[in-house]
Amino acid sequence: MFYHVKELQYHAKPERPDPLFAKKLQEILGGQFGEISVALQYMFQGFNVRGNGKYKDLLMDTGAEELAHIEMLATMIARLLDGAPVGDLETAAQDPIVGAILGGMNPQHAIVSGLGAIPADSVGNKWKADYIIASGNLLADFRANLNAESQGRLQAVRLYESTTDAGVKDMLSWLIARDTMHQNQWYAAIQELESKENIVVPSTFPKELEKREVSYTLFNYSRGNKSAEGRWANGVSMDGLGTFNYVEYPFPFGDKPVLNPAPHYIHDTLPSVLKSQTQHMPPNLC
Amino acid sequence: MFYHVKELQYHAKPERPDPLFAKKLQEILGGQFGEISVALQYMFQGFNVRGNGKYKDLLMDTGAEELAHIEMLATMIARLLDGAPVGDLETAAQDPIVGAILGGMNPQHAIVSGLGAIPADSVGNKWKADYIIASGNLLADFRANLNAESQGRLQAVRLYESTTDAGVKDMLSWLIARDTMHQNQWYAAIQELESKENIVVPSTFPKELEKREVSYTLFNYSRGNKSAEGRWANGVSMDGLGTFNYVEYPFPFGDKPVLNPAPHYIHDTLPSVLKSQTQHMPPNLC
Amino acid sequence: MFYHVKELQYHAKPERPDPLFAKKLQEILGGQFGEISVALQYMFQGFNVRGNGKYKDLLMDTGAEELAHIEMLATMIARLLDGAPVGDLETAAQDPIVGAILGGMNPQHAIVSGLGAIPADSVGNKWKADYIIASGNLLADFRANLNAESQGRLQAVRLYESTTDAGVKDMLSWLIARDTMHQNQWYAAIQELESKENIVVPSTFPKELEKREVSYTLFNYSRGNKSAEGRWANGVSMDGLGTFNYVEYPFPFGDKPVLNPAPHYIHDTLPSVLKSQTQHMPPNLC
Amino acid sequence: MFYHVKELQYHAKPERPDPLFAKKLQEILGGQFGEISVALQYMFQGFNVRGNGKYKDLLMDTGAEELAHIEMLATMIARLLDGAPVGDLETAAQDPIVGAILGGMNPQHAIVSGLGAIPADSVGNKWKADYIIASGNLLADFRANLNAESQGRLQAVRLYESTTDAGVKDMLSWLIARDTMHQNQWYAAIQELESKENIVVPSTFPKELEKREVSYTLFNYSRGNKSAEGRWANGVSMDGLGTFNYVEYPFPFGDKPVLNPAPHYIHDTLPSVLKSQTQHMPPNLC
Amino acid sequence: MFYHVKELQYHAKPERPDPLFAKKLQEILGGQFGEISVALQYMFQGFNVRGNGKYKDLLMDTGAEELAHIEMLATMIARLLDGAPVGDLETAAQDPIVGAILGGMNPQHAIVSGLGAIPADSVGNKWKADYIIASGNLLADFRANLNAESQGRLQAVRLYESTTDAGVKDMLSWLIARDTMHQNQWYAAIQELESKENIVVPSTFPKELEKREVSYTLFNYSRGNKSAEGRWANGVSMDGLGTFNYVEYPFPFGDKPVLNPAPHYIHDTLPSVLKSQTQHMPPNLC
Amino acid sequence: MFYHVKELQYHAKPERPDPLFAKKLQEILGGQFGEISVALQYMFQGFNVRGNGKYKDLLMDTGAEELAHIEMLATMIARLLDGAPVGDLETAAQDPIVGAILGGMNPQHAIVSGLGAIPADSVGNKWKADYIIASGNLLADFRANLNAESQGRLQAVRLYESTTDAGVKDMLSWLIARDTMHQNQWYAAIQELESKENIVVPSTFPKELEKREVSYTLFNYSRGNKSAEGRWANGVSMDGLGTFNYVEYPFPFGDKPVLNPAPHYIHDTLPSVLKSQTQHMPPNLC
Repeated sequence: MFYHVKELQYHAKPERPDPLFAKKLQEILGGQFGEISVALQYMFQGFNVRGNGKYKDLLMDTGAEELAHIEMLATMIARLLDGAPVGDLETAAQDPIVGAILGGMNPQHAIVSGLGAIPADSVGNKWKADYIIASGNLLADFRANLNAESQGRLQAVRLYESTTDAGVKDMLSWLIARDTMHQNQWYAAIQELESKENIVVPSTFPKELEKREVSYTLFNYSRGNKSAEGRWANGVSMDGLGTFNYVEYPFPFGDKPVLNPAPHYIHDTLPSVLKSQTQHMPPNLC
Repeated sequence: MFYHVKELQYHAKPERPDPLFAKKLQEILGGQFGEISVALQYMFQGFNVRGNGKYKDLLMDTGAEELAHIEMLATMIARLLDGAPVGDLETAAQDPIVGAILGGMNPQHAIVSGLGAIPADSVGNKWKADYIIASGNLLADFRANLNAESQGRLQAVRLYESTTDAGVKDMLSWLIARDTMHQNQWYAAIQELESKENIVVPSTFPKELEKREVSYTLFNYSRGNKSAEGRWANGVSMDGLGTFNYVEYPFPFGDKPVLNPAPHYIHDTLPSVLKSQTQHMPPNLC
Repeated sequence: MFYHVKELQYHAKPERPDPLFAKKLQEILGGQFGEISVALQYMFQGFNVRGNGKYKDLLMDTGAEELAHIEMLATMIARLLDGAPVGDLETAAQDPIVGAILGGMNPQHAIVSGLGAIPADSVGNKWKADYIIASGNLLADFRANLNAESQGRLQAVRLYESTTDAGVKDMLSWLIARDTMHQNQWYAAIQELESKENIVVPSTFPKELEKREVSYTLFNYSRGNKSAEGRWANGVSMDGLGTFNYVEYPFPFGDKPVLNPAPHYIHDTLPSVLKSQTQHMPPNLC
Repeated sequence: MFYHVKELQYHAKPERPDPLFAKKLQEILGGQFGEISVALQYMFQGFNVRGNGKYKDLLMDTGAEELAHIEMLATMIARLLDGAPVGDLETAAQDPIVGAILGGMNPQHAIVSGLGAIPADSVGNKWKADYIIASGNLLADFRANLNAESQGRLQAVRLYESTTDAGVKDMLSWLIARDTMHQNQWYAAIQELESKENIVVPSTFPKELEKREVSYTLFNYSRGNKSAEGRWANGVSMDGLGTFNYVEYPFPFGDKPVLNPAPHYIHDTLPSVLKSQTQHMPPNLC
Repeated sequence: MFYHVKELQYHAKPERPDPLFAKKLQEILGGQFGEISVALQYMFQGFNVRGNGKYKDLLMDTGAEELAHIEMLATMIARLLDGAPVGDLETAAQDPIVGAILGGMNPQHAIVSGLGAIPADSVGNKWKADYIIASGNLLADFRANLNAESQGRLQAVRLYESTTDAGVKDMLSWLIARDTMHQNQWYAAIQELESKENIVVPSTFPKELEKREVSYTLFNYSRGNKSAEGRWANGVSMDGLGTFNYVEYPFPFGDKPVLNPAPHYIHDTLPSVLKSQTQHMPPNLC
Repeated sequence: MFYHVKELQYHAKPERPDPLFAKKLQEILGGQFGEISVALQYMFQGFNVRGNGKYKDLLMDTGAEELAHIEMLATMIARLLDGAPVGDLETAAQDPIVGAILGGMNPQHAIVSGLGAIPADSVGNKWKADYIIASGNLLADFRANLNAESQGRLQAVRLYESTTDAGVKDMLSWLIARDTMHQNQWYAAIQELESKENIVVPSTFPKELEKREVSYTLFNYSRGNKSAEGRWANGVSMDGLGTFNYVEYPFPFGDKPVLNPAPHYIHDTLPSVLKSQTQHMPPNLC
């Protein structure tokens, strides 16, 4: 169950309106690695934990915090949109600054949301739950979380570099710091789980059931063998259970697949048509 | 540039048709963490590398291999669909097995693809590029890759547990082994990059520009403090640059946000209407 | 800012597992009118209110409650999935009940989420922010809310009718009651706003700028004139500013549109080709 | 069955081309509340009516009209795109007006549609049927319709404010008037249905089966109690069947949920790992 | 402008309800090549024609007819859903036929649409405008239309094979016949345009501006040279302007691409890190 | 199985950066008819061919080539983004060229991909597998391919017209030439299949099972009879099996559909409510 308090976790006041930046800032609100993604990802992982303890608590702590970040970003975006102009090409032609705004802002910020934030990214794609994952396996999921916080902090840093507004920078420096914490925390949780299980997810699948002969092999499918230089092609494997090796000229292990004809009621191309194609085949080409 | 050879990387022959399992197997072909996702993710990361060396080569090696896995899964699915029945409720009522197939198989496998694989997941959602990431920052992206191989292997293992077909199990045990390698290889590449940079992505953002006072703080936003037990709340931070701390009763750092009225040409709810709402406010509620 | 408590708003315990019903129940969690939709819709409306008062408070009260409903439904779905079987056609053929489950359940509940809830609807479409609206105009938005609670309660009632599980029915009867309240509350808020503005949204657009001659006209574009019987075709208009009228044989007010040719650099079909089409036109057809 | 006549319902001629405005105008053609949405929403509601009478007729009348609006908007957009320039940054640098167009217009209007309208919104998201609803319950659906016409008129008004082109304004003033009618008509139809049923949808679910004790309760989940001032928290409920009440400090009615472990074949995190997490738990934290 | 008449273009009465078949039939209503696709594709092509004549008239004739097909299919689906049962696993276990229906039908047909048709395909993906095209070049678009009618008829035929219901077969045999006509008509229109232009779209691009040396070359990128047997590798090209040729061992025409480093404010992986990767490179691998 | 070589199929070097054009060029990489679409379409068609011969070989040859085109376009886009500026409105106001770039470029090129290509179109919609088709019927699918190459070449030509950069033009003239070949090759393959089967897909459905009386009829559903002039309304049908005819005033063949009431457990609008609507019906309107 959730409670809301009206105060923001941290300030969200720009120095001045900037509808172009409002559009960009949408990325870390409603983009693939925006705050909606992490909030719902952590909540669904938390709800689905089959047990009850510190991992679930950590997920709910962080999920609830990300809801607060949605609120901060929505507030900042609404303020960046304060007094955003509307107009057409004639209006735009009269003032280059207004023209740049009219051409560059997200038109839905005026037409659809009435100067409010939208659950969408910086090009206007609406947020979708395809972005998130909750698999029931916490080591896998904490890796998803570490990735999300890495991508999210990278995007926040790029946005920080894109503005001269001290108020926006102030808020972003908060979010960047929180992403530092969240990378650290998932890193710590991953290390703990890896020490209890192993690094390969899932750790519960019997090793003898996989094709061990290719579990530590790098196949060179891209001409040039610079990849042979890496740690991943030399020495004991990272899971400690094998030895890396490198195959410079990988050959197929399987045959040319030939599929059976479809039943007539499927109305695929008839086998007779497919066969007849070879009737005129020049002999030297077979 | 790419070349194709007709042989499969590994065998893809089921013992018998099974249209229900064909539907499920679609998940690791065209789902969020299926082979299309990793193939295109590695290819885009590789194309976008700003430099040329072992990381790019590794990405292209692996991207090309994942294309081969698409091919293996498509072939296996087509064979699992061999002779799949069609029919209506009357047909279904005559034979419980046929009925189970008609009710449980993906109808598009008959109607749309003519007994061929579809670039979609196990519930029929078509594959979408929203699933993938290529950020230009390789540490961030290799974490995305490690996550993808973790989730992918987890799903392949669950599918392995779901079938009694020795041919399908044989192919899955190959794919599971390759996912073992791919988890190992991204793990190795991550360790190398972390040792050169630091664990926090991006490593190039000046530390003094983030709010360091909350870079290592766990806020307890979910009542109950089991999360205080974790490594993430105690000791030196994982990046070695701070000390974890725990705040049991986190208070807001910001104010209640009040947004300015919108310009009249936006036609939001009028400020006068919003204000008038307080006219009838009982005094004891303020 | 948000806080979470571990207890559920209301119980979410089924009498017994039922993976088929788990699939169906996803509709009111992650469907068009599910709890994710209302939670995020109310939150975005609340964040975007340009003013601060009872409407904003009401939106945040209800938005926070809907987050609790997401949690209840996710918990219920996870429990309905307890011990869900996996297997293929051979497994299915051995036991008709297991077969029905394998054919009818959402395969992602086993393969992707590991027996956890998914942010998706009952056919597996992932939730998307296209479902929600926050326009900045509260009368418009409260109508969206009343609609969402109407559709949501209708779906919950249909699900109630679809189960014999007393635990599921108990939880649904809670959610249905809350939807009763939420329909009542948005209804009340709408009445208040309509009494301050007018029923036509937005109320701030000058009446003389619209084509008043067709503001209260029902055009009969569907042969048969039963629609002429309605209140909407007779008497004073609902906004009190006009009189309804009915046009049985509506004629076009505009001309046949003919578009100018495209510039050559667009490479549309050439005007000469389009023109030449009339060269062979039989005279009696013009 | 449908017939088409070549004349437009109303004129759609701009004074001058304006590719930037063409992009914006797409919103009410192919956006969430654009004409495609209402046309298909009314048609599907009409096709699905289980009965035959004035409601169905009204739906088909209005659905057919909305098809005419699609045509008007498509025509207007094509004309706003007349002679739209193409070019790159070098071209743009030579003329600020051309530059503003090249930067601000929808590039697909040149590359994809060849200066024609696209079934998409103002940021280029293609129309999707997720936007619409036809539930079989007309009171619910007419509320969806009233909402759609409210949002649609609001957007049309905002577009009217954004242009100085008399031809565009002329067409918009027609569409705005029709939205006035359509809001009035659904309002009338809703009142009629509410008087026959009740305001709570669906009206056919037995009251005693819902948790009546919370059917009229406002829970204060957002700190601050301004929402207690509203009609929704005081007096007889809007459906006349209860009394509103307000709970300032709402407590959970449910327990902390603890989910059972998953079967081993699901390969979630092992219960032993989840349990072992408490082994090192400092005693004072429990 | 459009008019509707209440009668159907053709009968849509099944012999008996069949909720499983209702789900399948959705494919040709709301799938990629369903009636919504062709209706809106022809309408948008027609609205966008820059000229006025027989092609536009043909597009509008056919677009209006496809609207009638939407109506027929929606009606048929609603009737196939008559009395569709609801229930859970316990209900399903009592009657194998009911169980097959509950497991196999689209649950949204009961929960969301109240036994009405949905604008979605046979697996529940909602219709989206990504399916359609209107490019402004009629030869290109008529090829899209011929493809749509080919895929659509193929799917209708497969559905015909899947049912024993004489009423459904009767309606499908109508739709199949209309698809015969529509394939014939677009074929005729294509031939006419090809005879006026040429077969290569667009015909208006100066031949000397393309790399003529590879305009008629088949590159053998897939090992095995069966494709050399085809007409496409031998003789005069189909457009009459060149000669087909076959390259058995195609080599790259371009160089290995090396991208420049990104500016520091983008925070991609640093060039120094990418460079340093070669420091530990074993000498024999370069 | 696939192999990659590092060299590009053809050069991809622009003369100078141009972030605006980079955005546009995304269309033929990740749009509806971009290279991802054709690569995956040909690969899935090839994998699904139920037979093994020249058609499969041709599909794999061309599919592999399209992968090379993805690589060329990704490389070109990354280079067009070299040194792309970031900044806010203040930055934009200082230099009109920088302002045009900041307003017009795809913000994700900086924030998300770090100056790399994105699997998306020119307005930022991510690529989706809804764009492609593999039906198992090669004549149908080759028509899809001919359409894709027609639309793709049209878009490439429009982009060629939009740039003054000799390097970009050089690469586009390569792609345009390849599209010339691919149109020619699918045209040849289609002719071959049509000569073996017939022009109507699928050719395997017994003619007597369709309603032959409307297989060659053009119904005039759009007032005006210019469409009567066409070949499609006169003479022997294109498939040689019938005679075209034209119906100027098409009447319905079906009845007004009236659907049965829904069962009570569906909670649609009650039949009694629908019936009662006629109680107040003025007698002269029936």
